Amino acid sequence: MQHQNLDQMQCPIVRSVTRVGEWWSILILRDACHGLTRFDQFQKSLGIAPTVLTKRLAGLVEAGMLERRRYSERPPRDEYALTQMGRDFQPVLWSLLAWGNQYLAPEGPSVLVVDSQTGAPADPVLVDRATGRPLTAPAFREGAGPAANDRTRRRHIRPATPDQNEGSVP
Amino acid sequence: MQHQNLDQMQCPIVRSVTRVGEWWSILILRDACHGLTRFDQFQKSLGIAPTVLTKRLAGLVEAGMLERRRYSERPPRDEYALTQMGRDFQPVLWSLLAWGNQYLAPEGPSVLVVDSQTGAPADPVLVDRATGRPLTAPAFREGAGPAANDRTRRRHIRPATPDQNEGSVP
Repeated sequence: MQHQNLDQMQCPIVRSVTRVGEWWSILILRDACHGLTRFDQFQKSLGIAPTVLTKRLAGLVEAGMLERRRYSERPPRDEYALTQMGRDFQPVLWSLLAWGNQYLAPEGPSVLVVDSQTGAPADPVLVDRATGRPLTAPAFREGAGPAANDRTRRRHIRPATPDQNEGSVP
Repeated sequence: MQHQNLDQMQCPIVRSVTRVGEWWSILILRDACHGLTRFDQFQKSLGIAPTVLTKRLAGLVEAGMLERRRYSERPPRDEYALTQMGRDFQPVLWSLLAWGNQYLAPEGPSVLVVDSQTGAPADPVLVDRATGRPLTAPAFREGAGPAANDRTRRRHIRPATPDQNEGSVP
């Protein structure tokens, strides 16, 4: 992330993705969730090379997460709006934000999830919808679902005793 | 993600990251959460080029998410274990999993988060820890935290009426 500047680094999502990988797409989605729609807005916000931005925007449109809309005919200009699928990516962004605040903000959080009405900070935690139990290992794990094929099923069978798990490749 | 095979595509996390970007690091973390620790295990699971895997593992060690431990002196062999920081990345992975199952598994889920004891499927949702309210927009938004600088603070001030928000670049 060569174009990263200090202001970007205030964002815990930027810190998280910078730490884990190179993810322009996620930062475009973040900006789209902030209400940005236009090429220059994304470019100004991200300091990203136009060619890379063009490619990433096209990818997100193809992925079904952004929708291209023409807002000017002369000159021809498109804007990019989140689809429902794109909007529903928000919990991933806020999980990254929470993790970034936990581990990568020794000076305290610069950005928080807050109640839009009151401004009160929220403390994001992933839970099971029905029971409200926090989804953490080892209380929860990944398991085969109804559409699992045989190999996926084998990968997700856990042995009765931990010992048998030694050396197995899930 | 050139090395992607059909078995990998059973995983909703793989589908999600394939859709959004190129994120080997996240798949290594996923495999580490599954209990994989050794180079050959990651390589077999991911079908990733050894040079890329070496680089990504080193990156995750440097990032503080994996810890390198020597398990054999002759020949010299290291294994990679999750740190607490790495383990706490799990909610991000499971948010990706839930999103992948919602949008990228028309045939039904192949992999689910389940209760380790009972095997009962969980339905991951990001909520505010104190109130249990689901963290979705527009009820929640990002706001400036105590360590925000002036620019971050300006980016996160919302106008009193939606109209004033038009054309603003957060």
